[in-house]
Amino acid sequence: MNADNGYDIEDLRVGMSATYAKTLSAADIALFAQLSDDHNALHTNEEFARTTAFGGCIAHGILTASVISAALARHLPGPGGVYLGQQLRFMAPVKPGDTVHATVTVKSVDLARARAELETVCRVHDQVVIDGVALVQTTSSARRAAGARAAAPQA
Amino acid sequence: MNADNGYDIEDLRVGMSATYAKTLSAADIALFAQLSDDHNALHTNEEFARTTAFGGCIAHGILTASVISAALARHLPGPGGVYLGQQLRFMAPVKPGDTVHATVTVKSVDLARARAELETVCRVHDQVVIDGVALVQTTSSARRAAGARAAAPQA
Repeated sequence: MNADNGYDIEDLRVGMSATYAKTLSAADIALFAQLSDDHNALHTNEEFARTTAFGGCIAHGILTASVISAALARHLPGPGGVYLGQQLRFMAPVKPGDTVHATVTVKSVDLARARAELETVCRVHDQVVIDGVALVQTTSSARRAAGARAAAPQA
Repeated sequence: MNADNGYDIEDLRVGMSATYAKTLSAADIALFAQLSDDHNALHTNEEFARTTAFGGCIAHGILTASVISAALARHLPGPGGVYLGQQLRFMAPVKPGDTVHATVTVKSVDLARARAELETVCRVHDQVVIDGVALVQTTSSARRAAGARAAAPQA
């Protein structure tokens, strides 16, 4: 672990997993519409949304994806990680009041570049609502040690 | 176009393009940290962020990606579109006060399934900060016409 309790690349093993869960309220959706300027009527107009196949307003896909961002930032790899990429497939709608469980699972580890791929799956109850893959850079205990050696007084 | 001024799949041509631009303020970043529960110190702790290669706080990648969501929802394909997927590569940091220009460009059109792929590039000045691809479903004038014919009284 690094000094901020985040995982170094050397700590990560394929299959390690963590989950962060968050309820997306109607207030969250309204706030995200303001923050993003994405006022798609599917997210902000209940009368319109009722006429669609979704039967009512749904959360923005990118708002749901933010729960993945929280899982990565808080748990795995946690503090010190830098987000390099994310693939997202929006599989099913998320309705106001739904609790999104974002599970991130280490899929591959590149020690030399201090990078890891994680599967990122969001579920509401047992339904997958987002399926995807994240790429993150992490801290490295080996690089810290090399930096400390380079900085030490020469014998 | 559909009744809400969004593009039908039949209107889309490869190469059609639209841009939406938004300044990401320090307030936006603070609000997104609250909304997402992603309190990564890179986004919320200026003293820490100054010690990193970024030299100060940066915006969450998913917050920057929300400008793509706005470009799709507001301009191309616009109202009536449904977001099916997004690939994101975070190429460079976005700092508080940077204006993000999200350009979406039609890359391929699947008439039968009413789906289109769009290249999605976010720039700050001339630097690409996000590179990616979106998959959207749109409305279809052909499907509307078929529905109207099916609903018409039989001769």
